[in-house]
Amino acid sequence: MTQRYALKIQYLGKNYKGSQKQVGVNTIQDEIEKALCTLIKESIKTIFSGRTDAGVSARCQVLHFDSNLIIENEAKFLNSLNALLPDDIRVFEIAKKDKTFHAQKSAMFRHYKYTIRNDFVENVFDRCVLFCKYKLNANRMNEALQYLLGEHDFSAFKSKSDNPACVCNIYFAQAKRSSDGKYITIDIIGNRFLYNMVRTIVGTLLMIEKDNLEPLSMFEILKSKERANAGATADAKGLILETVGYDNCLEYINKYIGKVHK
Amino acid sequence: MTQRYALKIQYLGKNYKGSQKQVGVNTIQDEIEKALCTLIKESIKTIFSGRTDAGVSARCQVLHFDSNLIIENEAKFLNSLNALLPDDIRVFEIAKKDKTFHAQKSAMFRHYKYTIRNDFVENVFDRCVLFCKYKLNANRMNEALQYLLGEHDFSAFKSKSDNPACVCNIYFAQAKRSSDGKYITIDIIGNRFLYNMVRTIVGTLLMIEKDNLEPLSMFEILKSKERANAGATADAKGLILETVGYDNCLEYINKYIGKVHK
Repeated sequence: MTQRYALKIQYLGKNYKGSQKQVGVNTIQDEIEKALCTLIKESIKTIFSGRTDAGVSARCQVLHFDSNLIIENEAKFLNSLNALLPDDIRVFEIAKKDKTFHAQKSAMFRHYKYTIRNDFVENVFDRCVLFCKYKLNANRMNEALQYLLGEHDFSAFKSKSDNPACVCNIYFAQAKRSSDGKYITIDIIGNRFLYNMVRTIVGTLLMIEKDNLEPLSMFEILKSKERANAGATADAKGLILETVGYDNCLEYINKYIGKVHK
Repeated sequence: MTQRYALKIQYLGKNYKGSQKQVGVNTIQDEIEKALCTLIKESIKTIFSGRTDAGVSARCQVLHFDSNLIIENEAKFLNSLNALLPDDIRVFEIAKKDKTFHAQKSAMFRHYKYTIRNDFVENVFDRCVLFCKYKLNANRMNEALQYLLGEHDFSAFKSKSDNPACVCNIYFAQAKRSSDGKYITIDIIGNRFLYNMVRTIVGTLLMIEKDNLEPLSMFEILKSKERANAGATADAKGLILETVGYDNCLEYINKYIGKVHK
């Protein structure tokens, strides 16, 4: 009888072709499975909560695996595992789970954050931030985002034609300028996201701003279900998977808003 | 008659052998002078407020140069200059100055910040942060730092024997744990700093913690004037030159404390 374990990991996406294992390219899942196999000396298969695209980072990605190993000292296990991982991937939590837990299927929501430095010059200390010199209006962007709330067919924001299930439920969406005025952060929380969907939504916000369209355009683009109407897919470098949630989303949103608005 | 200009720049030190021009190695000053010469089409010599060591970063370093060029559109000049610089160096301000202004000699104070992640696991999003797993006591470190305030001979914290003038005046020194408990930041503000001095002070704080010495040891080490009594030079990667000041230091300190303690 094997034991199921859940891991919480974080990574910088820059050096990887996404999170999901693929033949011939370097991915987050490859690195994690390689390290687990070396440490546990078993062939380990991991299930991620979902895939992040090439170049996308994660502050908290969740995955599970089953193993014959009974881990007694969890801190020591994490230390050993991290020592086997590249510097840009770290495991920061391990937990024993029932077999009913499934990193992907049990997930209740995902929270993505896209950050834009909107100033006349870059900041060399920034990580995972898109630079945009063109002055953006965060209030207008926020207004446009509200049209995405609720359950909709997001075909207009998908990047590949091969995904037939395009209905997603967006629980929270916000664009906000930082207190120093130099950054705009875009938070989107939903039950699921299509391939490239967050980046295409951000690209559409940038299009609305640059072409001086009405925020209502977002609603029209959504309703059209036509990818051609949306903006270009924004660069992966600005995107972070903030967290994957397995509990009440409303509680999480309230806590999160309280934190960023304090 | 040439015009004197002051530039404010920021950089990541990781890829450079320090700020100061040296034959055969890559430095911040080399990159800045190369970009200025290309843009202005004059041979430009820059004077920095002071040098930062190999691997040390700066959030605000100041330098001046003289040129025959009359810069009319400063924003455009900065844009063109930044386009000629590597991604890890950015110029964010240019100002016309009288010939009485001297980036090094007119400086009233320098503010250095050293950041330590003091948790069981690294954070992949960190930049310019030293990782230390060993649990540190920020209160004890802060107490030790207070013995450095005022004018002293800092020979105990110098790294090279060839500097005869070792008297520095420290105006402010603070070690503080972050609100999430995972970081310790060490701020030191003084009129001048010896080569490697801040890093050796930080190394001494780490020695005091690891060897469980009394905070008063800092005072004894300072008074001994013996480098052998101080701790090892802490890694350059945690150090940032926060700013160089040309005005009243007290005003700056009050404003800074107000900001970090809010």
